[in-house]
Amino acid sequence: MTELNNLLAANEKYSSSFKFGDLQIPPSRKLAVLACMDARLTVENILGLNTGDSHIIRNAGGIATDDAIRSLIVSHELLGTQEFVIVNHTDCGMLTFNDEELRKKLVSKYKVSASSLNFYSFTDLEQNVRNQVDRIKSTPFIPEDIPVYGFVYNVKTGKLGRVV
Amino acid sequence: MTELNNLLAANEKYSSSFKFGDLQIPPSRKLAVLACMDARLTVENILGLNTGDSHIIRNAGGIATDDAIRSLIVSHELLGTQEFVIVNHTDCGMLTFNDEELRKKLVSKYKVSASSLNFYSFTDLEQNVRNQVDRIKSTPFIPEDIPVYGFVYNVKTGKLGRVV
Repeated sequence: MTELNNLLAANEKYSSSFKFGDLQIPPSRKLAVLACMDARLTVENILGLNTGDSHIIRNAGGIATDDAIRSLIVSHELLGTQEFVIVNHTDCGMLTFNDEELRKKLVSKYKVSASSLNFYSFTDLEQNVRNQVDRIKSTPFIPEDIPVYGFVYNVKTGKLGRVV
Repeated sequence: MTELNNLLAANEKYSSSFKFGDLQIPPSRKLAVLACMDARLTVENILGLNTGDSHIIRNAGGIATDDAIRSLIVSHELLGTQEFVIVNHTDCGMLTFNDEELRKKLVSKYKVSASSLNFYSFTDLEQNVRNQVDRIKSTPFIPEDIPVYGFVYNVKTGKLGRVV
């Protein structure tokens, strides 16, 4: 049994009382959030964001990869966002392995070279937040005066702690 | 005035009635969703996902970039997800420009070469969904038998339409 029918049934219910059909493309609160993909982070709820308020970019770790920066450039340049928020979190899966271990596991399992893969695992959570803010701040295609806030979300308490 | 204090006030409220402190790292429904960052998509609500159910990966367009695939590998290999869901949507910002136009705009504004930047703008929404499913299916580091569903979400009606 897959989850496919459950997802479709849930969407049928969602669309039956849908009320967001008049929203425009640009995020109404001019925000873009970059957060971890972790299942325990319902980012909109954690930050009090409503549908239409903010771009939400998510990946493993909440890392300012080239792809996340691509999304932030599109967000600011084409859709007018003016503030960026980074959310990493306690008990992150990215703290539980290192890249070399995972590459070895993949090579062993799939018999294909994994040397080109970077996973961005990390060991120091607050430093990781600072590094992502720094990466965004040093991107030449985002204005220097855009505020970039960096937070750690505590998955045990639901609280955000500001790092940057 | 920035949104910072509004976000912190909303989190104060969220954490005051927090009830998810016992959730574990692996997504309980063994799902990973890759969706667009668009502000009108509250992905969890569209799909009926609760906090803890699913990894949520998001970027501009809902594109299976190398970074999204990095996240899917971490999701499956380390955290046990077994089904992937792609969500693109109508009225996507990525349908409104082409990469070369945006590169020219950035070069003109920032006086730095943008030739290395790919934005993954597209012109055919359903074909774009199929392309992302194909990219994931062709990745050597994800098992071939993992189901990958591809949807278009209609921002005017709230309805999901299945493409793959």
